[in-house]
Amino acid sequence: MTREPKVLLKKLGLQFNDVALFSVALTHRSAGEKNNERLEFLGDAVLGFVIADVLWKQFPKASEGDLSRLRASLVNQTTLAEIARELHLGDYLIMGSGELKSGGFRRDSILSDAVESIMGAILTDQGFTGCRAWVLSIFSERLSQLSTENWQKDPKTRLQEHLQARQLELPVYQLLAESGQPHVKHFTIECRVCLIEEPVTGAGTSRKKAEQEAAEQMLKRISKSTGMQL
Amino acid sequence: MTREPKVLLKKLGLQFNDVALFSVALTHRSAGEKNNERLEFLGDAVLGFVIADVLWKQFPKASEGDLSRLRASLVNQTTLAEIARELHLGDYLIMGSGELKSGGFRRDSILSDAVESIMGAILTDQGFTGCRAWVLSIFSERLSQLSTENWQKDPKTRLQEHLQARQLELPVYQLLAESGQPHVKHFTIECRVCLIEEPVTGAGTSRKKAEQEAAEQMLKRISKSTGMQL
Repeated sequence: MTREPKVLLKKLGLQFNDVALFSVALTHRSAGEKNNERLEFLGDAVLGFVIADVLWKQFPKASEGDLSRLRASLVNQTTLAEIARELHLGDYLIMGSGELKSGGFRRDSILSDAVESIMGAILTDQGFTGCRAWVLSIFSERLSQLSTENWQKDPKTRLQEHLQARQLELPVYQLLAESGQPHVKHFTIECRVCLIEEPVTGAGTSRKKAEQEAAEQMLKRISKSTGMQL
Repeated sequence: MTREPKVLLKKLGLQFNDVALFSVALTHRSAGEKNNERLEFLGDAVLGFVIADVLWKQFPKASEGDLSRLRASLVNQTTLAEIARELHLGDYLIMGSGELKSGGFRRDSILSDAVESIMGAILTDQGFTGCRAWVLSIFSERLSQLSTENWQKDPKTRLQEHLQARQLELPVYQLLAESGQPHVKHFTIECRVCLIEEPVTGAGTSRKKAEQEAAEQMLKRISKSTGMQL
Protein backbone atom coordinates (compact mmCIF):
# COMPACT_ATOMS: atom_id res chain seq x y z
CA MET A 1 0.00 0.00 0.00
CA THR A 2 1.48 3.30 -1.09
CA ARG A 3 1.87 5.90 1.65
CA GLU A 4 1.27 9.65 1.37
CA PRO A 5 4.00 11.77 -0.28
CA LYS A 6 3.55 14.33 2.51
CA VAL A 7 4.69 11.79 5.08
CA LEU A 8 7.86 11.17 3.10
CA LEU A 9 8.52 14.90 2.72
CA LYS A 10 8.41 15.25 6.49
CA LYS A 11 10.67 12.24 6.99
CA LEU A 12 13.19 13.66 4.54
CA GLY A 13 13.09 17.05 6.26
CA LEU A 14 11.98 18.74 3.04
CA GLN A 15 9.45 21.51 2.57
CA PHE A 16 7.99 21.82 -0.90
CA ASN A 17 6.14 24.81 -2.29
CA ASP A 18 4.61 22.51 -4.88
CA VAL A 19 3.76 19.20 -3.21
CA ALA A 20 2.15 17.93 -6.42
CA LEU A 21 5.56 18.16 -8.09
CA PHE A 22 7.04 15.99 -5.34
CA SER A 23 4.30 13.42 -6.01
CA VAL A 24 5.24 13.38 -9.69
CA ALA A 25 8.82 12.56 -8.64
CA LEU A 26 7.48 9.43 -6.92
CA THR A 27 5.37 8.35 -9.89
CA HIS A 28 6.68 5.54 -12.06
CA ARG A 29 5.79 5.59 -15.76
CA SER A 30 3.58 2.52 -15.24
CA ALA A 31 1.13 4.79 -13.37
CA GLY A 32 0.41 7.04 -16.33
CA GLU A 33 1.57 9.91 -18.46
CA LYS A 34 2.38 12.31 -15.64
CA ASN A 35 5.39 10.41 -14.34
CA ASN A 36 8.92 11.06 -13.13
CA GLU A 37 10.85 10.42 -16.35
CA ARG A 38 11.51 14.08 -17.15
CA LEU A 39 12.41 14.88 -13.55
CA GLU A 40 14.82 11.96 -13.59
CA PHE A 41 16.63 13.46 -16.61
CA LEU A 42 17.06 16.71 -14.70
CA GLY A 43 18.04 15.00 -11.46
CA ASP A 44 20.62 12.84 -13.17
CA ALA A 45 22.28 15.97 -14.60
CA VAL A 46 22.33 17.93 -11.35
CA LEU A 47 23.56 14.90 -9.41
CA GLY A 48 26.43 14.34 -11.85
CA PHE A 49 27.48 17.96 -11.54
CA VAL A 50 27.17 18.27 -7.75
CA ILE A 51 29.25 15.14 -7.17
CA ALA A 52 31.85 16.16 -9.78
CA ASP A 53 32.19 19.54 -8.10
CA VAL A 54 32.60 18.18 -4.59
CA LEU A 55 35.10 15.51 -5.69
CA TRP A 56 37.10 18.12 -7.58
CA LYS A 57 37.55 20.05 -4.34
CA GLN A 58 37.94 17.02 -2.07
CA PHE A 59 40.69 15.42 -4.18
CA PRO A 60 42.89 18.24 -5.49
CA LYS A 61 45.56 15.79 -6.66
CA ALA A 62 43.35 13.24 -8.36
CA SER A 63 43.65 13.02 -12.13
CA GLU A 64 40.70 13.43 -14.47
CA GLY A 65 40.44 9.64 -14.83
CA ASP A 66 40.55 9.17 -11.06
CA LEU A 67 37.79 11.74 -10.61
CA SER A 68 35.65 9.99 -13.24
CA ARG A 69 36.09 6.64 -11.53
CA LEU A 70 35.39 8.14 -8.09
CA ARG A 71 32.20 9.66 -9.41
CA ALA A 72 31.14 6.42 -11.07
CA SER A 73 31.66 4.63 -7.75
CA LEU A 74 29.09 6.97 -6.16
CA VAL A 75 26.70 7.71 -8.98
CA ASN A 76 25.44 4.38 -10.24
CA GLN A 77 22.21 2.43 -10.10
CA THR A 78 23.31 0.14 -7.28
CA THR A 79 24.33 2.96 -4.93
CA LEU A 80 21.27 5.06 -5.72
CA ALA A 81 19.01 2.08 -5.04
CA GLU A 82 20.82 1.55 -1.71
CA ILE A 83 20.10 5.17 -0.83
CA ALA A 84 16.47 4.73 -1.85
CA ARG A 85 16.20 1.76 0.52
CA GLU A 86 17.79 3.69 3.36
CA LEU A 87 15.13 6.37 2.82
CA HIS A 88 12.35 3.71 2.49
CA LEU A 89 11.32 5.25 -0.84
CA GLY A 90 9.76 1.98 -1.96
CA ASP A 91 6.84 2.52 0.43
CA TYR A 92 5.92 5.77 -1.31
CA LEU A 93 6.29 4.95 -4.99
CA ILE A 94 3.22 5.43 -7.15
CA MET A 95 3.02 2.62 -9.71
CA GLY A 96 0.63 0.90 -12.06
CA SER A 97 -0.95 -2.26 -10.73
CA GLY A 98 1.21 -4.52 -12.90
CA GLU A 99 4.47 -3.08 -11.58
CA LEU A 100 3.08 -3.06 -8.07
CA LYS A 101 2.21 -6.75 -8.21
CA SER A 102 5.53 -7.74 -9.71
CA GLY A 103 7.37 -5.97 -6.89
CA GLY A 104 8.59 -2.93 -8.86
CA PHE A 105 9.11 -1.03 -5.60
CA ARG A 106 11.99 -3.38 -4.87
CA ARG A 107 13.69 -3.04 -8.26
CA ASP A 108 17.05 -1.22 -8.39
CA SER A 109 16.26 0.66 -11.60
CA ILE A 110 12.93 2.02 -10.33
CA LEU A 111 14.33 2.96 -6.92
CA SER A 112 17.39 4.63 -8.43
CA ASP A 113 15.26 6.61 -10.89
CA ALA A 114 13.06 7.84 -8.04
CA VAL A 115 16.07 9.20 -6.12
CA GLU A 116 17.20 11.15 -9.18
CA SER A 117 13.64 12.36 -9.79
CA ILE A 118 13.44 13.73 -6.26
CA MET A 119 16.66 15.65 -6.94
CA GLY A 120 15.09 17.08 -10.10
CA ALA A 121 11.98 18.07 -8.15
CA ILE A 122 13.99 19.79 -5.41
CA LEU A 123 15.95 21.68 -8.05
CA THR A 124 12.74 22.85 -9.71
CA ASP A 125 10.97 23.73 -6.46
CA GLN A 126 13.83 25.19 -4.48
CA GLY A 127 16.66 26.06 -6.83
CA PHE A 128 20.21 24.87 -7.13
CA THR A 129 21.45 25.68 -3.62
CA GLY A 130 18.70 23.70 -1.90
CA CYS A 131 19.12 20.79 -4.26
CA ARG A 132 22.88 20.71 -3.82
CA ALA A 133 22.47 20.68 -0.03
CA TRP A 134 20.13 17.67 -0.17
CA VAL A 135 22.38 15.75 -2.57
CA LEU A 136 25.36 16.34 -0.30
CA SER A 137 23.40 15.33 2.79
CA ILE A 138 22.36 11.96 1.38
CA PHE A 139 25.88 11.31 0.06
CA SER A 140 27.77 12.72 3.06
CA GLU A 141 28.71 9.41 4.62
CA ARG A 142 29.76 7.85 1.32
CA LEU A 143 31.78 10.95 0.45
CA SER A 144 33.61 10.89 3.75
CA GLN A 145 34.48 7.21 3.26
CA LEU A 146 36.01 7.73 -0.15
CA SER A 147 39.72 7.22 -0.26
CA THR A 148 42.47 6.52 -2.71
CA GLU A 149 41.48 2.87 -2.51
CA ASN A 150 38.26 3.57 -4.35
CA TRP A 151 39.94 5.13 -7.32
CA GLN A 152 43.06 3.10 -7.63
CA LYS A 153 41.43 -0.22 -8.16
CA ASP A 154 43.31 -2.51 -10.46
CA PRO A 155 42.17 -2.89 -14.09
CA LYS A 156 40.66 -6.40 -13.64
CA THR A 157 38.46 -5.18 -10.79
CA ARG A 158 37.45 -2.08 -12.73
CA LEU A 159 36.54 -4.12 -15.81
CA GLN A 160 34.56 -6.60 -13.73
CA GLU A 161 32.67 -3.85 -11.92
CA HIS A 162 31.89 -2.07 -15.17
CA LEU A 163 30.36 -5.21 -16.66
CA GLN A 164 28.50 -6.16 -13.46
CA ALA A 165 26.95 -2.71 -13.20
CA ARG A 166 25.49 -3.30 -16.68
CA GLN A 167 24.45 -6.87 -15.90
CA LEU A 168 26.74 -8.18 -18.62
CA GLU A 169 28.72 -11.42 -18.57
CA LEU A 170 32.11 -11.32 -16.84
CA PRO A 171 35.30 -11.20 -18.91
CA VAL A 172 36.97 -14.43 -19.98
CA TYR A 173 40.77 -14.63 -19.66
CA GLN A 174 42.61 -17.30 -21.58
CA LEU A 175 46.29 -18.20 -21.70
CA LEU A 176 47.52 -17.88 -25.28
CA ALA A 177 51.23 -18.52 -24.76
CA GLU A 178 53.76 -19.24 -22.05
CA SER A 179 57.48 -19.20 -22.80
CA GLY A 180 60.93 -18.73 -21.23
CA GLN A 181 62.82 -20.37 -18.38
CA PRO A 182 61.17 -20.81 -14.95
CA HIS A 183 62.78 -17.61 -13.58
CA VAL A 184 62.10 -15.48 -16.67
CA LYS A 185 58.68 -16.61 -17.79
CA HIS A 186 56.62 -14.70 -20.32
CA PHE A 187 52.84 -15.01 -20.44
CA THR A 188 50.36 -13.81 -23.04
CA ILE A 189 46.73 -13.64 -22.00
CA GLU A 190 43.68 -12.97 -24.09
CA CYS A 191 40.68 -11.14 -22.65
CA ARG A 192 37.20 -11.32 -24.18
CA VAL A 193 34.03 -9.48 -23.22
CA CYS A 194 30.63 -9.55 -24.88
CA LEU A 195 30.66 -5.77 -25.39
CA ILE A 196 33.58 -5.80 -27.80
CA GLU A 197 33.80 -8.12 -30.76
CA GLU A 198 37.57 -8.59 -30.95
CA PRO A 199 39.58 -9.94 -28.01
CA VAL A 200 42.60 -8.01 -26.72
CA THR A 201 45.85 -9.42 -25.36
CA GLY A 202 48.18 -8.54 -22.53
CA ALA A 203 51.66 -9.79 -21.73
CA GLY A 204 53.73 -9.99 -18.54
CA THR A 205 56.20 -11.95 -16.45
CA SER A 206 53.40 -13.63 -14.52
CA ARG A 207 49.96 -14.82 -15.45
CA LYS A 208 48.46 -12.27 -13.10
CA LYS A 209 50.38 -9.36 -14.58
CA ALA A 210 49.44 -10.40 -18.10
CA GLU A 211 45.77 -10.55 -17.09
CA GLN A 212 45.91 -7.06 -15.56
CA GLU A 213 47.52 -5.72 -18.72
CA ALA A 214 44.84 -7.37 -20.88
CA ALA A 215 42.09 -5.90 -18.67
CA GLU A 216 43.66 -2.43 -18.96
CA GLN A 217 43.70 -2.74 -22.76
CA MET A 218 40.05 -3.85 -22.73
CA LEU A 219 39.06 -0.87 -20.56
CA LYS A 220 40.72 1.43 -23.09
CA ARG A 221 38.89 -0.29 -25.93
CA ILE A 222 35.53 0.07 -24.19
CA SER A 223 36.26 3.70 -23.28
CA LYS A 224 37.03 4.45 -26.90
CA SER A 225 33.95 2.81 -28.31
CA THR A 226 31.51 4.19 -25.73
CA GLY A 227 33.00 7.57 -24.93
CA MET A 228 33.04 6.69 -21.21
CA GLN A 229 36.02 7.15 -18.91
CA LEU A 230 36.83 3.74 -17.41
CA MET B 1 52.67 31.45 -32.03
CA THR B 2 50.55 31.30 -28.89
CA ARG B 3 48.95 34.57 -27.84
CA GLU B 4 48.53 35.91 -24.31
CA PRO B 5 45.65 34.47 -22.22
CA LYS B 6 44.84 38.03 -21.08
CA VAL B 7 44.02 39.02 -24.64
CA LEU B 8 41.57 36.13 -24.90
CA LEU B 9 39.98 37.02 -21.57
CA LYS B 10 39.30 40.50 -22.87
CA LYS B 11 37.91 39.18 -26.16
CA LEU B 12 35.58 36.84 -24.28
CA GLY B 13 34.43 39.65 -22.02
CA LEU B 14 35.57 37.76 -18.93
CA GLN B 15 37.26 39.10 -15.81
CA PHE B 16 39.19 36.55 -13.77
CA ASN B 17 40.36 36.97 -10.19
CA ASP B 18 42.91 34.25 -10.84
CA VAL B 19 44.33 34.73 -14.34
CA ALA B 20 46.78 31.87 -13.80
CA LEU B 21 43.81 29.51 -13.48
CA PHE B 22 42.53 30.72 -16.84
CA SER B 23 45.96 29.94 -18.34
CA VAL B 24 45.74 26.41 -16.95
CA ALA B 25 42.43 26.01 -18.78
CA LEU B 26 44.25 26.75 -22.03
CA THR B 27 47.10 24.32 -21.33
CA HIS B 28 47.04 20.98 -23.11
CA ARG B 29 48.57 18.00 -21.31
CA SER B 30 51.42 17.94 -23.85
CA ALA B 31 52.74 21.13 -22.21
CA GLY B 32 53.33 19.57 -18.81
CA GLU B 33 51.82 18.42 -15.57
CA LYS B 34 49.86 21.57 -14.81
CA ASN B 35 47.32 21.16 -17.59
CA ASN B 36 43.60 21.46 -18.18
CA GLU B 37 42.52 17.82 -17.69
CA ARG B 38 41.03 18.31 -14.23
CA LEU B 39 39.28 21.53 -15.25
CA GLU B 40 37.85 19.71 -18.25
CA PHE B 41 36.27 17.10 -15.95
CA LEU B 42 34.59 19.87 -13.98
CA GLY B 43 33.58 21.83 -17.08
CA ASP B 44 32.06 18.75 -18.71
CA ALA B 45 29.88 18.20 -15.63
CA VAL B 46 28.68 21.78 -15.31
CA LEU B 47 28.02 22.02 -19.06
CA GLY B 48 25.93 18.84 -19.01
CA PHE B 49 23.85 20.17 -16.14
CA VAL B 50 23.37 23.72 -17.45
CA ILE B 51 22.20 22.47 -20.85
CA ALA B 52 19.94 19.81 -19.28
CA ASP B 53 18.35 22.46 -17.08
CA VAL B 54 17.72 24.92 -19.89
CA LEU B 55 16.31 22.25 -22.23
CA TRP B 56 14.04 21.00 -19.46
CA LYS B 57 12.48 24.46 -19.25
CA GLN B 58 12.55 25.22 -22.99
CA PHE B 59 10.81 21.96 -24.00
CA PRO B 60 8.16 21.24 -21.34
CA LYS B 61 6.56 18.54 -23.47
CA ALA B 62 9.70 16.71 -24.57
CA SER B 63 10.17 13.22 -23.20
CA GLU B 64 13.26 12.16 -21.28
CA GLY B 65 14.65 10.47 -24.42
CA ASP B 66 13.98 13.58 -26.49
CA LEU B 67 15.76 15.74 -23.91
CA SER B 68 18.76 13.39 -23.92
CA ARG B 69 18.98 13.51 -27.70
CA LEU B 70 18.57 17.29 -27.75
CA ARG B 71 21.39 17.62 -25.26
CA ALA B 72 23.62 15.24 -27.21
CA SER B 73 23.01 17.35 -30.32
CA LEU B 74 24.47 20.36 -28.48
CA VAL B 75 27.03 18.83 -26.15
CA ASN B 76 29.39 16.84 -28.34
CA GLN B 77 32.95 17.17 -29.53
CA THR B 78 32.05 18.49 -32.98
CA THR B 79 29.85 21.31 -31.68
CA LEU B 80 32.28 22.27 -28.92
CA ALA B 81 35.13 22.40 -31.45
CA GLU B 82 32.99 24.62 -33.68
CA ILE B 83 32.46 26.95 -30.73
CA ALA B 84 36.19 26.93 -30.02
CA ARG B 85 36.86 27.98 -33.61
CA GLU B 86 34.28 30.76 -33.42
CA LEU B 87 36.14 32.04 -30.33
CA HIS B 88 39.56 31.55 -32.03
CA LEU B 89 40.71 29.49 -29.05
CA GLY B 90 43.31 27.69 -31.17
CA ASP B 91 45.46 30.84 -31.21
CA TYR B 92 45.72 30.79 -27.43
CA LEU B 93 46.29 27.13 -26.62
CA ILE B 94 49.44 26.27 -24.70
CA MET B 95 50.88 23.00 -26.03
CA GLY B 96 54.05 20.96 -26.13
CA SER B 97 56.20 21.44 -29.22
CA GLY B 98 55.21 18.06 -30.67
CA GLU B 99 51.49 18.84 -30.54
CA LEU B 100 52.15 22.34 -31.81
CA LYS B 101 54.04 21.10 -34.86
CA SER B 102 51.46 18.44 -35.67
CA GLY B 103 48.70 21.07 -35.65
CA GLY B 104 47.05 20.12 -32.34
CA PHE B 105 45.42 23.54 -32.17
CA ARG B 106 43.24 22.49 -35.08
CA ARG B 107 42.17 19.15 -33.63
CA ASP B 108 38.53 18.77 -32.55
CA SER B 109 39.33 16.85 -29.37
CA ILE B 110 41.85 19.42 -28.11
CA LEU B 111 39.64 22.38 -29.00
CA SER B 112 36.56 20.81 -27.43
CA ASP B 113 38.45 19.98 -24.22
CA ALA B 114 39.65 23.58 -23.98
CA VAL B 115 36.09 24.94 -24.15
CA GLU B 116 35.04 22.63 -21.30
CA SER B 117 38.16 23.56 -19.32
CA ILE B 118 37.31 27.25 -19.60
CA MET B 119 33.86 26.44 -18.19
CA GLY B 120 35.52 24.63 -15.28
CA ALA B 121 37.80 27.60 -14.68
CA ILE B 122 34.93 30.11 -14.72
CA LEU B 123 33.03 27.92 -12.26
CA THR B 124 36.02 27.81 -9.93
CA ASP B 125 36.84 31.50 -10.23
CA GLN B 126 33.38 32.99 -10.31
CA GLY B 127 30.91 30.43 -9.06
CA PHE B 128 27.95 28.72 -10.62
CA THR B 129 25.91 31.76 -11.65
CA GLY B 130 28.75 33.32 -13.64
CA CYS B 131 29.60 30.02 -15.26
CA ARG B 132 26.00 29.34 -16.21
CA ALA B 133 25.71 32.79 -17.80
CA TRP B 134 28.78 32.19 -19.96
CA VAL B 135 27.65 28.72 -21.04
CA LEU B 136 24.25 30.10 -22.05
CA SER B 137 25.82 33.01 -23.91
CA ILE B 138 28.01 30.79 -26.09
CA PHE B 139 25.14 28.37 -26.75
CA SER B 140 22.40 31.01 -27.13
CA GLU B 141 22.15 30.90 -30.91
CA ARG B 142 22.23 27.10 -31.06
CA LEU B 143 19.62 26.90 -28.30
CA SER B 144 17.31 29.27 -30.13
CA GLN B 145 17.62 27.21 -33.31
CA LEU B 146 16.67 23.94 -31.68
CA SER B 147 13.36 22.57 -32.78
CA THR B 148 11.45 19.34 -32.83
CA GLU B 149 13.39 18.42 -35.96
CA ASN B 150 16.55 17.99 -33.93
CA TRP B 151 15.05 15.49 -31.58
CA GLN B 152 12.77 13.51 -33.76
CA LYS B 153 15.33 12.12 -36.12
CA ASP B 154 14.58 8.63 -37.37
CA PRO B 155 16.42 5.63 -35.87
CA LYS B 156 18.72 5.06 -38.90
CA THR B 157 19.92 8.65 -38.77
CA ARG B 158 20.42 8.49 -35.00
CA LEU B 159 22.40 5.26 -35.25
CA GLN B 160 24.56 6.63 -38.05
CA GLU B 161 25.27 9.85 -36.14
CA HIS B 162 26.14 7.98 -32.99
CA LEU B 163 28.71 5.85 -34.82
CA GLN B 164 30.12 8.78 -36.80
CA ALA B 165 30.60 10.83 -33.65
CA ARG B 166 32.79 7.99 -32.36
CA GLN B 167 34.58 7.54 -35.67
CA LEU B 168 33.29 4.00 -35.96
CA GLU B 169 32.27 2.18 -39.13
CA LEU B 170 28.73 2.73 -40.36
CA PRO B 171 26.06 0.05 -39.83
CA VAL B 172 25.57 -2.65 -42.43
CA TYR B 173 21.98 -3.53 -43.35
CA GLN B 174 21.31 -6.81 -45.12
CA LEU B 175 18.11 -8.32 -46.43
CA LEU B 176 17.52 -11.67 -44.71
CA ALA B 177 14.10 -12.54 -46.09
CA GLU B 178 11.40 -11.22 -48.36
CA SER B 179 8.02 -12.88 -48.58
CA GLY B 180 4.36 -12.35 -49.39
CA GLN B 181 2.45 -11.08 -52.43
CA PRO B 182 3.43 -7.80 -54.13
CA HIS B 183 0.80 -5.81 -52.21
CA VAL B 184 1.49 -7.43 -48.79
CA LYS B 185 5.23 -7.86 -48.76
CA HIS B 186 7.15 -8.70 -45.64
CA PHE B 187 10.83 -7.82 -45.26
CA THR B 188 13.33 -8.89 -42.63
CA ILE B 189 16.52 -6.87 -42.38
CA GLU B 190 19.60 -7.57 -40.34
CA CYS B 191 21.67 -4.71 -38.91
CA ARG B 192 25.29 -5.10 -37.82
CA VAL B 193 27.61 -2.62 -36.15
CA CYS B 194 31.16 -3.13 -34.91
CA LEU B 195 30.20 -2.05 -31.35
CA ILE B 196 27.91 -5.02 -30.75
CA GLU B 197 28.85 -8.59 -31.44
CA GLU B 198 25.46 -10.01 -32.39
CA PRO B 199 23.39 -8.57 -35.23
CA VAL B 200 19.78 -7.53 -34.64
CA THR B 201 16.84 -7.84 -37.00
CA GLY B 202 13.86 -5.71 -37.90
CA ALA B 203 10.78 -6.51 -39.91
CA GLY B 204 8.29 -4.43 -41.87
CA THR B 205 6.09 -4.11 -44.92
CA SER B 206 8.82 -2.30 -46.83
CA ARG B 207 12.57 -2.61 -46.91
CA LYS B 208 12.85 0.91 -45.54
CA LYS B 209 10.51 0.23 -42.62
CA ALA B 210 12.35 -2.96 -41.74
CA GLU B 211 15.68 -1.10 -41.75
CA GLN B 212 14.30 1.59 -39.43
CA GLU B 213 13.01 -1.07 -37.07
CA ALA B 214 16.39 -2.84 -37.08
CA ALA B 215 18.17 0.46 -36.37
CA GLU B 216 15.79 1.14 -33.47
CA GLN B 217 16.57 -2.29 -32.00
CA MET B 218 20.30 -1.67 -32.40
CA LEU B 219 20.01 1.70 -30.63
CA LYS B 220 18.29 -0.05 -27.73
CA ARG B 221 21.02 -2.69 -27.63
CA ILE B 222 23.79 -0.06 -27.58
CA SER B 223 21.93 1.99 -24.95
CA LYS B 224 21.66 -1.07 -22.75
CA SER B 225 25.30 -2.07 -23.03
CA THR B 226 26.73 1.41 -22.62
CA GLY B 227 24.24 3.05 -20.29
CA MET B 228 23.78 5.91 -22.77
CA GLN B 229 20.41 7.25 -23.92
CA LEU B 230 20.32 6.94 -27.71
